Amino acid sequence: MECHRLPDARNCLPGHRRGQKSYKRCMLLTFLGTSSGTPTLARNVTAIALQLPQRSSLWLFDCGEGTQHQVLRTPLRLSQLEKIFFTHLHGDHLFGTVGLLASRALGGAGTTPVTLYGPPGLQEYVKATLRYSDTHINYPIHFQTVEPGLIASSDGFTVLANSLKHRIPAFGYSVIEDDQPGHFDAERAAALGVPFGPLYGQLKSGQSITLADGRVIDGRTLVGPARRGRKLTYCSDTIYTRQAVELALNADVLVHEATFLTSELNLAERALHSTAAMAAQVASEARVGQLILTHFSPRYENCPAAIRAEAEAIFPNVLLAEDFWRFEIQAKAASI
Amino acid sequence: MECHRLPDARNCLPGHRRGQKSYKRCMLLTFLGTSSGTPTLARNVTAIALQLPQRSSLWLFDCGEGTQHQVLRTPLRLSQLEKIFFTHLHGDHLFGTVGLLASRALGGAGTTPVTLYGPPGLQEYVKATLRYSDTHINYPIHFQTVEPGLIASSDGFTVLANSLKHRIPAFGYSVIEDDQPGHFDAERAAALGVPFGPLYGQLKSGQSITLADGRVIDGRTLVGPARRGRKLTYCSDTIYTRQAVELALNADVLVHEATFLTSELNLAERALHSTAAMAAQVASEARVGQLILTHFSPRYENCPAAIRAEAEAIFPNVLLAEDFWRFEIQAKAASI
Repeated sequence: MECHRLPDARNCLPGHRRGQKSYKRCMLLTFLGTSSGTPTLARNVTAIALQLPQRSSLWLFDCGEGTQHQVLRTPLRLSQLEKIFFTHLHGDHLFGTVGLLASRALGGAGTTPVTLYGPPGLQEYVKATLRYSDTHINYPIHFQTVEPGLIASSDGFTVLANSLKHRIPAFGYSVIEDDQPGHFDAERAAALGVPFGPLYGQLKSGQSITLADGRVIDGRTLVGPARRGRKLTYCSDTIYTRQAVELALNADVLVHEATFLTSELNLAERALHSTAAMAAQVASEARVGQLILTHFSPRYENCPAAIRAEAEAIFPNVLLAEDFWRFEIQAKAASI
Repeated sequence: MECHRLPDARNCLPGHRRGQKSYKRCMLLTFLGTSSGTPTLARNVTAIALQLPQRSSLWLFDCGEGTQHQVLRTPLRLSQLEKIFFTHLHGDHLFGTVGLLASRALGGAGTTPVTLYGPPGLQEYVKATLRYSDTHINYPIHFQTVEPGLIASSDGFTVLANSLKHRIPAFGYSVIEDDQPGHFDAERAAALGVPFGPLYGQLKSGQSITLADGRVIDGRTLVGPARRGRKLTYCSDTIYTRQAVELALNADVLVHEATFLTSELNLAERALHSTAAMAAQVASEARVGQLILTHFSPRYENCPAAIRAEAEAIFPNVLLAEDFWRFEIQAKAASI
């Protein structure tokens, strides 16, 4: 196959800075590893970070060997780590876990609890590794065994899981933001003579208020339409499955593994991995806004154009993840 | 403490190329990780490679997380991996093991057996990790639980271990090359009229031969003095102990941990790690040729001059290891 390297960096810079109001509402992905099976010089094995700046929270999806090393090369802070969701327990998604948790404990950087979500066996693996290596973690670690359905719901976000189709039990995850109230037009309220204070809160929540001069202001006239919460879906490792489609339905962003090209369909079917075409098929059927492909076989190190072309033939909005790539999850256009 | 970064690269290039006769007899160290506890941007956690080119063998000492990633950035080949010696089972010396073994198996790069030597628990850790992660290795892995004394002896090298003094069972290792026969002066043999063929072998082994013209040639006159085999000793993790001195006695090269400066003696004593002064004390008492310090606390990232100065006040020949540093083990001068 003739191919050459095409860096794929469109749409990858959030353009926000810490402290700015717009940054606070960001959902930022950072790809920490985009290779399948083994690391290469350019790509580490799998981990993806999701930052929820409003909560000062860092969530990880998978934690392959060397994830803590990758984090060192980013602005991410392990002290903010709150949750790790494991898709499955293959080593290239798992072997960085205990080292990362231990480094978070050293030097007092992280003291808040971390919850690990994953298939049966995760807790036993982590506890055995801690025991054999005499590793002591100075903050609580909680475990939750994942089953299809609701996984977690708190502080404005809900996490759902669904079973995928791999050689061992594997789960995809959706992170769904609560629907957001519409924009409150504070400038117009001030222009109407509403005095600063608690009346603004009543107007923001859609109530009517009466001013000192007798005028009645209906809060609903100052609040824009409610905004649908954003939705991220992550599916890896899996061959094409309808359950990925169900999980990803209407997602703004779908991150899906694309280990192989269709030219290696026999390998994909044997190892229960996806081709780029399968990932695009899921994106198309689920009517997602943006498909991001990751988890590439090292054999395609220099062939992103072929992967993109195969996916774009089925679904138009395709990006290929690279290590250290940052991506802001934004609501897809309503027309899609 | 006032300090600044001083790259330490003297004596670190072997100056040999594969295929040259001199290269074949090299014992080459490659430092793959020189930080203690956690990785930094400049230093990975511990692993050291020893190449024995004559045997096309690669041995590792410890295998911290990310060792396989470091190997990718060197000329080392995992297909040549033959043995891994573990000093102890703390994660920063251990957590790269199963990922490295799995990557060696993928793609058929490595098919020959690998033997793992280490404290009790090593086999259980590796087998549990393979089981939880459903990792299948397509070559034999052997395990040997280490006790003080003879560990391995074959093909010209002997490995000894001795107990060190750390928070969990820990061992230092010495690799001792068999003594080598003296140089055979083939040019002089030819000048004396010895016909090419099996007579050269007899002369090389010190026998006398009788030529066709009746002259008797004493092989011992054509063979130089025997050369003492080289000796490498590696001690980590440990606070100062006489057992390290016994193990390192008369070594050509001692690689010793130096996690702290004496200014943090209380930390060293609490964690049972060495100061640079302790490492130098071992080198001095053992009368080694070259001391190489490694396993530096991340707090000294920019302070190699202070570490070197503390050690050099006690022992003159001190080098500070850096990641990707290569060092050829050579026989120390007889006078040392």
